[in-house]
Order: sequence, then structure tokens, then C-alpha cells
Amino acid sequence: MKLLKTVSAAALMVALPSLGLAQEAAEAPAAVPTDVVWIMTTLLFLIGGFLVFFMACGFAMLEAGLVRQKNVTMQLTKNMGLFGFACIAYYAIGYNLMYPLGTWSIEGILSGVWGPAVMEAVGVGADAVDDYAYASTGSDYFFQLMFCAATASIVSGALAERIKLWPFLAFVVVLTGVIYPLQASWKWGGGFLDNMGFLDFAGSTVVHSVGGWAALAGAIILGSRVGKYKDGKVVPMLGSNLPLATLGTFILWLGWFGFNGGSQLAMGSISDIADVSRIFVNTNMAAACGAIAAMILTQLVYGKVDLTMVLNGALAGLVSITAEPLTPTLFMAGLIGAVGGAIVVFGVPFLDRLKIDDVVGAIPVHLFAGIWGTLAVVLTNGDANLGTQIYSIVVVGVFTFVASGVVWYILKLVTGIRVDEEAEINGLDTSELGMEAYPEFSTT
Amino acid sequence: MKLLKTVSAAALMVALPSLGLAQEAAEAPAAVPTDVVWIMTTLLFLIGGFLVFFMACGFAMLEAGLVRQKNVTMQLTKNMGLFGFACIAYYAIGYNLMYPLGTWSIEGILSGVWGPAVMEAVGVGADAVDDYAYASTGSDYFFQLMFCAATASIVSGALAERIKLWPFLAFVVVLTGVIYPLQASWKWGGGFLDNMGFLDFAGSTVVHSVGGWAALAGAIILGSRVGKYKDGKVVPMLGSNLPLATLGTFILWLGWFGFNGGSQLAMGSISDIADVSRIFVNTNMAAACGAIAAMILTQLVYGKVDLTMVLNGALAGLVSITAEPLTPTLFMAGLIGAVGGAIVVFGVPFLDRLKIDDVVGAIPVHLFAGIWGTLAVVLTNGDANLGTQIYSIVVVGVFTFVASGVVWYILKLVTGIRVDEEAEINGLDTSELGMEAYPEFSTT
Amino acid sequence: MKLLKTVSAAALMVALPSLGLAQEAAEAPAAVPTDVVWIMTTLLFLIGGFLVFFMACGFAMLEAGLVRQKNVTMQLTKNMGLFGFACIAYYAIGYNLMYPLGTWSIEGILSGVWGPAVMEAVGVGADAVDDYAYASTGSDYFFQLMFCAATASIVSGALAERIKLWPFLAFVVVLTGVIYPLQASWKWGGGFLDNMGFLDFAGSTVVHSVGGWAALAGAIILGSRVGKYKDGKVVPMLGSNLPLATLGTFILWLGWFGFNGGSQLAMGSISDIADVSRIFVNTNMAAACGAIAAMILTQLVYGKVDLTMVLNGALAGLVSITAEPLTPTLFMAGLIGAVGGAIVVFGVPFLDRLKIDDVVGAIPVHLFAGIWGTLAVVLTNGDANLGTQIYSIVVVGVFTFVASGVVWYILKLVTGIRVDEEAEINGLDTSELGMEAYPEFSTT
Repeated sequence: MKLLKTVSAAALMVALPSLGLAQEAAEAPAAVPTDVVWIMTTLLFLIGGFLVFFMACGFAMLEAGLVRQKNVTMQLTKNMGLFGFACIAYYAIGYNLMYPLGTWSIEGILSGVWGPAVMEAVGVGADAVDDYAYASTGSDYFFQLMFCAATASIVSGALAERIKLWPFLAFVVVLTGVIYPLQASWKWGGGFLDNMGFLDFAGSTVVHSVGGWAALAGAIILGSRVGKYKDGKVVPMLGSNLPLATLGTFILWLGWFGFNGGSQLAMGSISDIADVSRIFVNTNMAAACGAIAAMILTQLVYGKVDLTMVLNGALAGLVSITAEPLTPTLFMAGLIGAVGGAIVVFGVPFLDRLKIDDVVGAIPVHLFAGIWGTLAVVLTNGDANLGTQIYSIVVVGVFTFVASGVVWYILKLVTGIRVDEEAEINGLDTSELGMEAYPEFSTT
Repeated sequence: MKLLKTVSAAALMVALPSLGLAQEAAEAPAAVPTDVVWIMTTLLFLIGGFLVFFMACGFAMLEAGLVRQKNVTMQLTKNMGLFGFACIAYYAIGYNLMYPLGTWSIEGILSGVWGPAVMEAVGVGADAVDDYAYASTGSDYFFQLMFCAATASIVSGALAERIKLWPFLAFVVVLTGVIYPLQASWKWGGGFLDNMGFLDFAGSTVVHSVGGWAALAGAIILGSRVGKYKDGKVVPMLGSNLPLATLGTFILWLGWFGFNGGSQLAMGSISDIADVSRIFVNTNMAAACGAIAAMILTQLVYGKVDLTMVLNGALAGLVSITAEPLTPTLFMAGLIGAVGGAIVVFGVPFLDRLKIDDVVGAIPVHLFAGIWGTLAVVLTNGDANLGTQIYSIVVVGVFTFVASGVVWYILKLVTGIRVDEEAEINGLDTSELGMEAYPEFSTT
Repeated sequence: MKLLKTVSAAALMVALPSLGLAQEAAEAPAAVPTDVVWIMTTLLFLIGGFLVFFMACGFAMLEAGLVRQKNVTMQLTKNMGLFGFACIAYYAIGYNLMYPLGTWSIEGILSGVWGPAVMEAVGVGADAVDDYAYASTGSDYFFQLMFCAATASIVSGALAERIKLWPFLAFVVVLTGVIYPLQASWKWGGGFLDNMGFLDFAGSTVVHSVGGWAALAGAIILGSRVGKYKDGKVVPMLGSNLPLATLGTFILWLGWFGFNGGSQLAMGSISDIADVSRIFVNTNMAAACGAIAAMILTQLVYGKVDLTMVLNGALAGLVSITAEPLTPTLFMAGLIGAVGGAIVVFGVPFLDRLKIDDVVGAIPVHLFAGIWGTLAVVLTNGDANLGTQIYSIVVVGVFTFVASGVVWYILKLVTGIRVDEEAEINGLDTSELGMEAYPEFSTT
């Protein structure tokens, strides 16, 4: 374990020559070979990517824990399905729509340069890689795919307990194949929002608010669950398995290190990996303070700590710091996260007053806190412009809300998107899938 | 987040000289120092190894979720125990049987060069490492051990709910100490199958089918669960906790990035880590398409999506791509995985028709899809020979099935391998362990 | 997959010149550039850190699985809360108390050099990093924070099912802000124990026994659960969800690779990463043998394998190897771990005889095995001195026990630390939080 830093640094000064290392200086220059830079950034995407992949599991567990027992199998099925279809849609359409090989997406579509994603050849050398200044295409694809899939995961929680399986999955195909990549190209594909100076480091807007807007459009068109709003009162429908929800939250928190850290997009220099380190600690601090803010606020407001609010507070802290995890100090990161936690505590009942039924709190967590995080960039990053941030939030929001709304509406007309009332009351597990999540546990 | 690739590449051309980086070119050569190559490959094994380690957890959760409530504690106990004994057996016998320090295993045994595994010395230098062209022995051992343990995990699911604890663990010792390492040496230890040109990148045959054959031999000798096949009908015995099974599947999927990616066995060059990246995306695509294939097929065949089939479909997709995760395009990876998913949908009822009782579907997933994956190598890898692939599948299969069968049979004669009927009906948790997994949940 | 080592090495000798690599020797020197050394060690902390972060989830799952159903929500809430408050306290006070920028902590406090933790600037260069001989401050902070939080997690399990939420969290603030960092500075901050030659690689004493002592002081002052010790008998209070406890154990095991491996504090040389590899395999072997020892012993002593003992046996194996995971051979690592497992099997009933009520077995696992591991350093590390090890165990133990006891006692006087008897009998979930963990599962 670590000794006192200055001691070890001082010791090194003395030790180096005596170990004969000074003589080897010519053989051990400081600078990072350019191949190593490429390798390290590729490694960042691979590690970041598998961490973000695991967020798919986190969403599944969180949602399975927060729905009622009779809908758990369906929620798990949706989460497996949405991830699978996202992988196919992003491969077939999304990736090259988002990064259309040198032309911005709309032009790319018109000029027909996009098609299914293609990886670099087996055994590719430095002279033949797609971008020697960046990283392997496979690693980039892997990382970007996981962001796209995360967007779809956000939607599934909000619409739980009453949406039909296949129409939901059809929406996922459009969301991950077209809606997400198109708007992401405006910022990350070098499109007009990027040119305007819009700053969104890892996607408070591009990923989280987009998931939130799509969920909001769906929740409005789908309507609330049977019995949720009755005689002007909100009827609590409790999550069936809080350890599972807590597990999901921890897994998401873990995955977020990859989500935000990987978005540095480089790890092959001292500067870049020191920045990744800052991003890790800021991300963690925002989550911690989001959880604690929700804990204190629920104690003060309701007289009792509410675990589901604490979990969503941590997630809102994470969403809030996502637009700018690099420039804040630890203190500011904590503050930004704490505000995110507070937003959840007040956002959940606010939505209920509007009779918008969001089963797991996805809209406060991902949309409200996503907007806050995008605005908060101006607090710590001097390059950010509040007007541009607001403009971008609105443009992305209007586009996603309208596009999603149209798709939901078409699905409603063509196939219907909601199970019938009897099926909903009996639970989707028996009525739609014929398979209970906990067949042997008797229920109260 | 990433900007448009060609833009950033173009910008770099301009930016480099102005940043004074061009002048430093002599200090920052492209080539990777040879020490760094060794370090990076060692790191690949450490990361890959902890991911594959986590698969032990994935198997435990999957199996605990798919058995009935009365056998959950036993299934967890078996999974902890098998991993522990695998670590001991692979240390004491397996590792050096598999890689016998320069001689192929049978010759190694005869000449007595093998013994317990030994790591490199503390503080070893480049001149004293075991293989400067490869990686640290400790990292290699760590990675290989996890593969060996995974083989044993496959067996435990198939034989659940009726096998005795200690005879099962005795089998695990033989499997991980002798059977697995011996046949693995034929391919990965440089043995005769390797010399023939057999291709099995990460072990569709060497790991998965071996686990499957050992399970099949056990399932036949052990017999089906009481009441499973009654009056010519298959009585469904539902998994008790589907969120747990889903969690296990996601963890296995995560671990598979280490399983297949680490099997590149090198990460210290552009070519190698670009290949690892391809392996990641192909592995993911095969899993996604395996899940979706099972989803669509169960909808079409049974009229309802079956979550347990979807989970096993994802796993079968992963097994299918394991023999060759590098050469396929994303499209071919998806196709190979989808066929794996289909194999599960038809393989599970097929086994039931044969009255072979495989509790979690391990034999369709690991054996049937493992064979398919091994054959599918010829679709994308020009170096593969269909005859050699078939020959190797048969040789490994016959050896493992016969050797496992002999061990199971001896155990049956000497100690018995099956609990008595009353214990089975009451559940192994109370009858064998005196400890329920969910003591407070009342059952229906 | 790996081929026979000597074959590939031999092949390389032949292959190198023919590939034209020999000519490039001047461009590909062996030595690791110093920037790369820094990058690799930073990466070690980031990977190690996220693995240790995940241990917070492991503790939460383990504890939620081992408490009774009526206290599960509270246990989850405590685990989320303790992690959040640990992050804040370590930021505000702990980190610079532990590593006070060049002065040992007490002097640091007196001279006022410490304050909230500060990361390196965004885009820092090699010339401006805090310690070019080490790693980025952000990565170091991230790694160290997770150790501090782990210490608090240990406490929460022992005191479960009767302690009040907010007083517990107040204790966590003192533990993670002051008690842990202060004693950690004695060893890892270059303090007097370090100067004496005390050896504790990754914290059998500094982390685990400290958590254990703090828990012991709390357990004594808090008293046992209502009905636990009745008429001279120990009343079993069974864990409500063993799959959850098993999941927690596997996650902790996974995290421990980061815990011990990261404590090598360097990964930028062949020697260092080969050592990290040894640490991985030794850590794994100790856990495996701890689990198997508990399995065999419970079979022999009680006639039945006890899964909760097996889980705690694995954890005790991990704690035991933590003081010295590098120097042991695999055999010795297994032996040290096995003794740890045995300590748990006998330590749990021993505590019960003393009527010290430790709900999850945290004190045997972390304190007893932590002491054993610290003593066992002398078995394999020639630099260790038994007297110094004992002296350090006692100093850290007396300090932590007394300091914790004072804090617990003050909290008892000021706010009370225990819920009233009716609340305890009804369960903390309904009485304190108004939220059940499994609201729909009926209980027996």
C-alpha cells in the first residue's frame, strides 16, 4: 500500500542512479509511442464498453425490483429483448447514421454512404486502421452501441406493467436505429449542435434526456396503470423486490464509471488518463451526494427515509454529472449531484400530479436531472454558453418527443400498445407470457 | 464524446506541428516496447480472468434461479464448492497436465515433469520471466483456471435437484484435475488435435462441449427427477426465481467478453487489440441474436415468448461464437448466434423426449450449441477444415463422455450419487443441508 | 488459445528475423517509457478502484440476504447511506488526514496543511502532476476512498436488525472521516507503524480488523437482538435470502482482486504486473480454500454443510491473505486461507457464547481472520517481524476499539442508538422506514 508521496518521490531521486536506471535513460524515454496511445484508447473503450454493457443488467434488475410481482417476468423479457434488438438496429442502421464516414448524417443518408457497420479487418496494422489518431473501430463501435442500448433501457422502466411486448420492441428498433443515432449525430457526429458549441460530455442530453423524452411521449400516449390515480389520489404500487432494485442501482453506478470515464475518448497520455481519473471521482461524488440529498430530503419532507428515492437520487446524481464530469471540483460535482437527487424527490410527486404514470421514476431521473446536468455545465466549464445549452436541450427534446410520439401513435393505431384491462389486472406475466417470476412464493 | 472521425483526423494533421509534437517524433516512436507488449498481454489475462471468474457467480445465479425453491441452497452450495475444488485440483494437477512445460501431457506424465503449479518469483525481471514472448505465468494461470472452473459449472446445472453434494464434488475434482486438462492439452497444450489443425478459439468444444458431455453422462446415469416424466408427459418444474436467472445470464454475457476476448492471448500490438475489439463486438452480436432468435421462435412455435428460452438463447449464442469469435463479420456473428438460439428452442424439448432430465438446459446450450459453433468455424475461417473439426468434436466427445461416465459409474457404485426419493421430494435444502434458501417466504 | 509455451518461444526465435522485426529493434526498445509507467499505474487504480467500489454492492447484498425479511429495506438503506457519507467524509477530512501532503498526519493536523481533497488540474502534463513517480491523484483518491468505504461496510452487517439509521450514519462519518484515516496514516501514510517495519499489504489490519473492532465495540454497547440469547441458548435467526448472500460473496470475491491487486501500487513494469498476477492467484486460492475448509469442517462438526459458513469461509480466506498476498506460494496462500475459513467456523459460535450478537459474522470474518492474516505474514515474508506485527495489531486494535467505543457511547447518550423493542420485533422496515423489501411475498 501507498507510502507518503513526497517520501517516495524523494527516495526515487536517490534510488534511480544507484539502480543503474539513470544510464538507461536513453532506452526509457518519457514519451508514449504512438502505437501505445492507440492501444490504450482502444483498451479504454473495451473496459468502458463492458462496464456500460453491464448497465443493461442494472436497468433490468432495477426495473424488475420496482414493478409488482405479477409483471416481473415481462419486465425481464423486455430488457433482454430491447438489448438484443438495439444491437441489431444499431448495427444495421444506427452506427453509420450517427458517424457517416466523414459526412454529417443527413448528408450521409442522402449521399448513401451509410450501411451496416463494418469492423476493421482481422490482423489490421497501423497503416491500415481506420483512424490511427483514435482507436480501433471495433472498440469504438462496442462503446457507442452500449450508449444506444442504454437509451432504450431508460424507456422500458417508465412504461412498465401495461405495455405490450412486441410494440414496445418495435419502438426500440426505431429509437435505436434512427431517433437516437440521428440526434446523437448532431452533437457527437459533428453536426450542427456541435458546431454551435453545445457541450454534453457523456450524454445528459444526448442519452439520458432522449431516453426520458421517449419515455414521456410513451407514458402520455399509453396512459396510466389501472387504478393508479383514483378519486384524485395517487395509489402507491410498491416495488416487489427492493434488494433487486438496490442491486440494479449499484450495477448502474459501477457501469457509469465506464460511461463517463470512457467518454474522455483517450487514455494514451498522462493528461488523458489523469482526466479519466477526475471523471471517476466526480462521477462517484455526484452519485453519493445525489443519494444523500434524497435521503436527507425524504427524512425532512416525509419524516422517513425512502429507499426507492435514495436509489433514484443516486442515479439522478449520476445523470446530472454526465454532461460535464471533468471540469467540476469534487465539491461542485457533489453539489451538482445533490441537486439531481433533490430533483427526483420533488419530480416524482410532480409527475404524479400530472397523472403521468412513470413506474420506476425514469423521467425525473433521466429527463429532469438530464436537463439540469446539461445546464450545470456552465457552472464549471468556461467554454459553455447557457443559451446554446438551452437551445440544444430544446432542439433535442422537441425532436425526440415529437418523433417518439409519432412512432408511439402509429403503433397505437396499427397494433395497439396496451394490453387489455383484464390482462393488466391479472398481471402481464400470466396473461401475456404464461410464466411467473416467482411461481412458488405465495402472495399476500 | 467522439467527433466525426475524418474531421478529427484532419484536424490532427494541422494541429500536430503547431503543438510542437512533430519535433518530438524521435522521442515518440510508433513501435511498442517489448516490455510493454508483455505487460499488456498480462493485463489482458488479468482483466479477462476476473471477468471469467465472475461467470462462476453467473452460473450460480442462473442455476439458483432455475431450480425449485426447495433446492436453491443446495445449488448455491454446489456452485461455491465446485469452484473451490476446481481451484485446488487445477493447482495440484490440472495446470501442468494441460501445459506440461514443453512436453505434451501424456509424455509429460510419463516423464514426470509435472507437479503443482508454480508462479514466477516475486519481483521477476524481463530476463527471468518464464516466457518473454507471452505474459506472466500468474496471469496465464489465473485465466486458464477460470476456464477450467467454468467447465465444472456447466455440469452442476444439468444434474441439479437430485444429486448428492459430495459425490458431485468428487466428480468435479476428477473433471477439473484430469479430464478437462487432458483433453485441453490436445488442443491448447499443443497436442495432436492442434497439430491436425483443429480450430477452437476460446473453447466451444474444449470448454463448453466438454462440460456438456460430462453433464450428459451424469444425467443419463443419474436418471431424471421424480415425477418429471409421467405417463409419457413432461411435467414442467418451474424455476423459482427468474430475476436471479436473468441476472446470471447477464453476468455470464459480461464474463464472456473476458472469455473470448482474453483468448486472443495478446494485447500488445495494434493488430492484437483490434482483434480483441472485433471479438468483443462479435461475441455481443451472437448473444443478442441468440436471444432474439429464441424470442421470435418461442413466439411463433408456442404463441408466447418464453423468458427461460430467451436467456438460454443468449447463452447458446455465446457458446456458438466461442469457437471462432474473430473472423466472422458482425452479420455472420449474428447468424451463428441466432442458430445457437434456435438450437436451444428445439434442443430442450428434444432432450425431454429422450427423457434426459437437464434441469437448466445446460446440454442444449453448452453441448449442442458448442458442436454447432465448432462446425461453424468453417463458415468464416479459411484455415478450418470441416473433417478436422468433426473429428476433433468426436474425439473430445467420446473421451469426455466415456471418462465421465466411468467416473459417475464408479461413484454410483461406491458412494451412490443420488439422494433417496423422500429427500428429493422434500427438497435437498431441508433433507441434506437443513437450511432453506428463503426460510420466511411461504410457498404455494 | 495458448499453445505450448516452449514451442511458441522457439517459434518466435525463428520468426522474428523473417518478419523483419529484428531490424526494427532500435525503434522497439524493451524499456517502458516513464509516461507509460505512470499511465499503467493510474490504470491499475482505476480498475482496482471500480472493483473495490463494487464491493459496496457485495456487502449490501450479503447483508440483505443474511438479515430477516423484516429488516431488509433498512439494511439496504444503511448500505447506500454509509457509502454516500463515507464519500463525503473522506473527501472533506479523511484523505488529507491520511496522506497529509508530506507530513505525517498528526503533524499535518497541527500545522494545518490538510483540507478537502483536491484533484490534479484538467489536462495536467507530466511536468505538473503531483507525483510523476506514482500515478494520478484522482486515481489514487478513487482507490483509497473505496478502501475507506469498505471499512464502514464491515460495521453495518454486525449491528443489523436493531440499530437506528441516523446514529449509525453519524458513526460512519466519524469512522471514515477520522478513525480510519488516522490509523491508516500510521502505516500507509508513512507513520510510526510503517517506520517500525509493520507489514500489511492491503489491509488485513488497517482495513478489515479496523472494521471488525469498530463493529465489536458497537455490538457490545448496542447489545444483542431481542430473543437472540434465551435461557442460555442461542436462538437461530436465519438469513432471509441465501442467493442474495451468495451473490454478495461472489461480488466481494471479485472486488478483492482489485483490493489486493491494486495494492501493489504499480503496474508499469514487468516486475510489478507479474506481482499483481501472483496476487490475483493467491487471493483466489485463499478464498477457495477458505470456502472448502468451512465446507469440510461444517460437514465434520455439524454433520451438514452450512452454506452461510461456506460464504463466510471464503470471505475469511480473502481477509487472511490480504496482509500478504504477494510472497506466499499458491500452496501457502491456500493454507492461510483455509485457516481463515476454520477461524470462522469456530469464531461464530465463540462470539455467541460471549453473547455478542454479530448478525452476519462480520467480526469472525474481518477481525479474527484479519488478525490471523496479519500474523501469517511472518510465514512467507522474511522482512516481517512477529513482534512488530503483534504490536501493530494491538495498537490499531486498542485505538480503534476505544475510539469507536467512545463514539458509540456518546451517540447512545445523545441520540440513542437502538430502536425500541416493539419496533425491533415488528421489524425496522415497517417501524422505521414504512417500506417493506418484499411487500407482496407473504411470510410464514
